[in-house]
Amino acid sequence: MQPTHTLDVDLGDRSYPIYIGSQLLGDAGLLRPHLHGSSALIVSNQTVAPLYLDAVAAALDTIGVRRDQLVLPDGEQHKTMAAVEQILDHLLENRHDRRSTIIALGGGVVGDIAGFAAAIYQRGVNFIQVPTTLLSQVDSSVGGKTGVNHPMGKNMIGAFYQPQCVIADIGSLATLPARELSAGLAEVIKYGLIHDAAFFDWLEQHMDELVAGEPELLAEAVLVSCRTKAKVVELDEREAGLRAILNLGHTFGHAIETAMGYGNWLHGEAVAAGMVMAIDLSIRQGWIDEDVRRRSLALLERAGLPVAPPPGIRVEQFLDLMAVDKKAVDGQIRLVLLRALGEAFVCDDYDPAKLEATLAA
Amino acid sequence: MQPTHTLDVDLGDRSYPIYIGSQLLGDAGLLRPHLHGSSALIVSNQTVAPLYLDAVAAALDTIGVRRDQLVLPDGEQHKTMAAVEQILDHLLENRHDRRSTIIALGGGVVGDIAGFAAAIYQRGVNFIQVPTTLLSQVDSSVGGKTGVNHPMGKNMIGAFYQPQCVIADIGSLATLPARELSAGLAEVIKYGLIHDAAFFDWLEQHMDELVAGEPELLAEAVLVSCRTKAKVVELDEREAGLRAILNLGHTFGHAIETAMGYGNWLHGEAVAAGMVMAIDLSIRQGWIDEDVRRRSLALLERAGLPVAPPPGIRVEQFLDLMAVDKKAVDGQIRLVLLRALGEAFVCDDYDPAKLEATLAA
Repeated sequence: MQPTHTLDVDLGDRSYPIYIGSQLLGDAGLLRPHLHGSSALIVSNQTVAPLYLDAVAAALDTIGVRRDQLVLPDGEQHKTMAAVEQILDHLLENRHDRRSTIIALGGGVVGDIAGFAAAIYQRGVNFIQVPTTLLSQVDSSVGGKTGVNHPMGKNMIGAFYQPQCVIADIGSLATLPARELSAGLAEVIKYGLIHDAAFFDWLEQHMDELVAGEPELLAEAVLVSCRTKAKVVELDEREAGLRAILNLGHTFGHAIETAMGYGNWLHGEAVAAGMVMAIDLSIRQGWIDEDVRRRSLALLERAGLPVAPPPGIRVEQFLDLMAVDKKAVDGQIRLVLLRALGEAFVCDDYDPAKLEATLAA
Repeated sequence: MQPTHTLDVDLGDRSYPIYIGSQLLGDAGLLRPHLHGSSALIVSNQTVAPLYLDAVAAALDTIGVRRDQLVLPDGEQHKTMAAVEQILDHLLENRHDRRSTIIALGGGVVGDIAGFAAAIYQRGVNFIQVPTTLLSQVDSSVGGKTGVNHPMGKNMIGAFYQPQCVIADIGSLATLPARELSAGLAEVIKYGLIHDAAFFDWLEQHMDELVAGEPELLAEAVLVSCRTKAKVVELDEREAGLRAILNLGHTFGHAIETAMGYGNWLHGEAVAAGMVMAIDLSIRQGWIDEDVRRRSLALLERAGLPVAPPPGIRVEQFLDLMAVDKKAVDGQIRLVLLRALGEAFVCDDYDPAKLEATLAA
């Protein structure tokens, strides 16, 4: 099938297209121009492989590319250096050379692990993202952030490494559990909050259909989300400044994920609770009013998301976990806060007492 | 001390200077403009640290940068992912943030490991090369190749990652064992062979003084070598083609290193024997004459280098080890060969029977 939408991420010699539409997964014609060598490795996980791996493999067979596959265990707790090393071992054992292509088929975890392996195998091989979850379609597959977790912090090891293309098949969302669709909607709502009040309005109108999995509306939501992300990444690929606004709710969220143990809260769920905390602090700072909180809570709840952190994380534990965030500079925690609905900024002159009040609340 | 020579590597927004001279190691003024955050980690090895670590540490203290240090075991056999992970753990445990700087103080192994750690810690932190061996001053510290070995092949895991600057203190060569000075001279001679026949002549005139460690001539040899390397890297940073000529003798050499076990033959020694093999094959192909071999053997021997591989590596073993070389495309071994003294090229249409004759010889 032809993609419904094609969006170009403009990064000079690292530019690439994002294809959005239905039944794209097994499309040999889409893959063909992005494969340069004679072999490819499909990296997937135990949940996604039984559903979609055969379609991608068949497309590679059509093109005449030697392929093999590696199926990883599913879940954020497996996003480790050990998984990356498993891929590297597999590539070497099967004589994949520098022109080989790694195809990530799955959610954000598979994309982050496989993308990082592609970044460091023989100092970089071709890489294609085939995200099968809403969260990875709207966020992690776009922009070139790859990497794994360290016991002391999330995404602490990795590289900026852009794919050759992203193939976002909306059809794959039909098999996504409701909880994971919701987790993806957290990032979709984020784009409204940080950059696009009109999109936030649109989400308020269509949230029920999105939760119900209506494909055309999901494709529209993926398109608008990727367009915003691409725009920000084009301006600041390596996160010197602006790009950090994409992390609204993430500093709080990463702390929640680390405190709860990777994999117990979904990333999108932690981000949802984290965004509510960022909104709380922004209100305490006097930058936005209660109306933003009211609308955000309502939208997140309709999306099936938590709107508060889990009980039992102490303020000191939060501060400690937040201090290892990559945005921290010289020990000072920097946060993404809101100046208005649709306008986020990176802030390091908030009132620390107000942050503690937010954490305690 | 002011550097005797400053050479700029021009790579757009990844450009950086190479400082060459005496007593540069402890120069706070040289370091200052290249440090951006408030902390730094010095990575060194057990041989170099007792000699030079205090000088670098004192320079950081002068600038007021919080520093700590990590001393790794010495030797190519320690150039592993485990060493990289040790650095990453240390960085996290000591709360180094994204603005921290990693300073590699030592030879090529330290530079490759520490540079790769800098490339992947928090998706990339600042990195400074302070090479203390001739081999690392003329080769590995320049051009941004970082990485580690895998049991199945040398430098199979890594990244292209450019430093902020390179500080090549010729004074540190005074403490270098003769065998390691010779290993460095192998790469120096390589620049003559691949690109610069006049430099080869100059080396023939001055080899005895270079082996004796004469600082001004060593500085000149480092400058000319780095200038050639910089020129090639500027034209082809990520080794799409031309850059591969820097690997004259390396495909043979890597096979020797792997067959002998990392650390038993020095890299420069394996490259010396490998260059002789590349010359042998180039002669069998009819591209160069015996005179090149005669002059090269004489120069390598005066530099204290081996001119043949160790006995006992079978032809099939050589071919097998060479097939995992990163230059291999679709299973075909590509080699850097000579068209003339001073002119190397990447070749994949040599006669396989002649390659086997070279390996058997």
